[in-house]
Amino acid sequence: MKIPVVAKILEANERIAAENRKLLKKHNVFAVNIMSSPGAGKTTLIESTIKALAGRVRVGVIEGDIQGTADAERIGKLEVPVVQINTGGACHLDANMIGEALRGFPLDRIDLLIIENVGNLVCPAEFNVGEDAKAMLLSITEGEDKPLKYPLMFQESKVLLVNKMDLQPYLNVDVGKIKRDARILNPQIRIFEVSARDGTGMKEWVEWLGGHIR
Amino acid sequence: MKIPVVAKILEANERIAAENRKLLKKHNVFAVNIMSSPGAGKTTLIESTIKALAGRVRVGVIEGDIQGTADAERIGKLEVPVVQINTGGACHLDANMIGEALRGFPLDRIDLLIIENVGNLVCPAEFNVGEDAKAMLLSITEGEDKPLKYPLMFQESKVLLVNKMDLQPYLNVDVGKIKRDARILNPQIRIFEVSARDGTGMKEWVEWLGGHIR
Repeated sequence: MKIPVVAKILEANERIAAENRKLLKKHNVFAVNIMSSPGAGKTTLIESTIKALAGRVRVGVIEGDIQGTADAERIGKLEVPVVQINTGGACHLDANMIGEALRGFPLDRIDLLIIENVGNLVCPAEFNVGEDAKAMLLSITEGEDKPLKYPLMFQESKVLLVNKMDLQPYLNVDVGKIKRDARILNPQIRIFEVSARDGTGMKEWVEWLGGHIR
Repeated sequence: MKIPVVAKILEANERIAAENRKLLKKHNVFAVNIMSSPGAGKTTLIESTIKALAGRVRVGVIEGDIQGTADAERIGKLEVPVVQINTGGACHLDANMIGEALRGFPLDRIDLLIIENVGNLVCPAEFNVGEDAKAMLLSITEGEDKPLKYPLMFQESKVLLVNKMDLQPYLNVDVGKIKRDARILNPQIRIFEVSARDGTGMKEWVEWLGGHIR
């Protein structure tokens, strides 16, 4: 159990997160850090969100992955500024990585920065990166036991997006339990039931985002 | 980037993993370490595997979770020896945790030890725990891009179980690409298409396991 090491990493991380937050505020950029399991639909959600906000809110994206640029290429097709972070093994983004990505990022030309974290339900919740809000995406295909198994993620998030609602007829999943348990862990959490693929519920999520633009 | 710290952790981990491996070998126990994203179906797969092996192979289970005992309780209903590890925040099992769990475990009364790792596609692949084989479970709901995004997991695994095949009619997922990319990363990998829920393909996986019992 390596708790002392982790504590030191987290302290140093918090200092850099505060610098990132200051920089983003200076440029009137609202930043949301999107976290989920691998394959829960983060990139598809970001694509749908950018399309829904087009003409109203200028979006920039930081993509976090162990390696590769597949997600950044998908986002780049939507002609928004995008930077790819390759963590090279680390299973989460940290504030220092985001600080590097923000160097040279056209912050004066965006209103909203969407950060796609590495797919992982544990460590991303422990590392603040300077965001205004963490939003968690949970695919209903993952089952209703996730809030109680990964509580920190739900406690740290302002928003829970319950995704892949279009698959509900084919699954034995209790979406009510997901929502109840998430609210036990975090009574303030805003919950949106969405399908990033078919557009279900996206309007409410996009309105929530729009209401936070500076 | 905290690479020096991670390197030291990994060295110490390897020494303890070797001790665990020696202990398991002494008791003629074959150990498989099951890794996946959260919600890919590890516990359901283990339940189906135990039922399929009943009367032929004596199974024991170590459950790894951040917190809680829900999975161990599910497995306990099948009347096999089970130990729950709560990692208390760590996003993976390490050799030291497994060493602790093996103290007092009835190794003389089992032939197969199934270790359910914490749901995470990154760090579990970096930490050997003394297992004979790593088996990775990928739910097709996670999409076909996972092998190229999380390559280490596929490179380290002897077996890839492509799970939730019963949902294929409702998804736009290219299972062929999953298998092709997995084999590019790891030409020796054995791939089984399964549905732990409805039993599809479970026979081949269980035969593979049975063939490795000492």
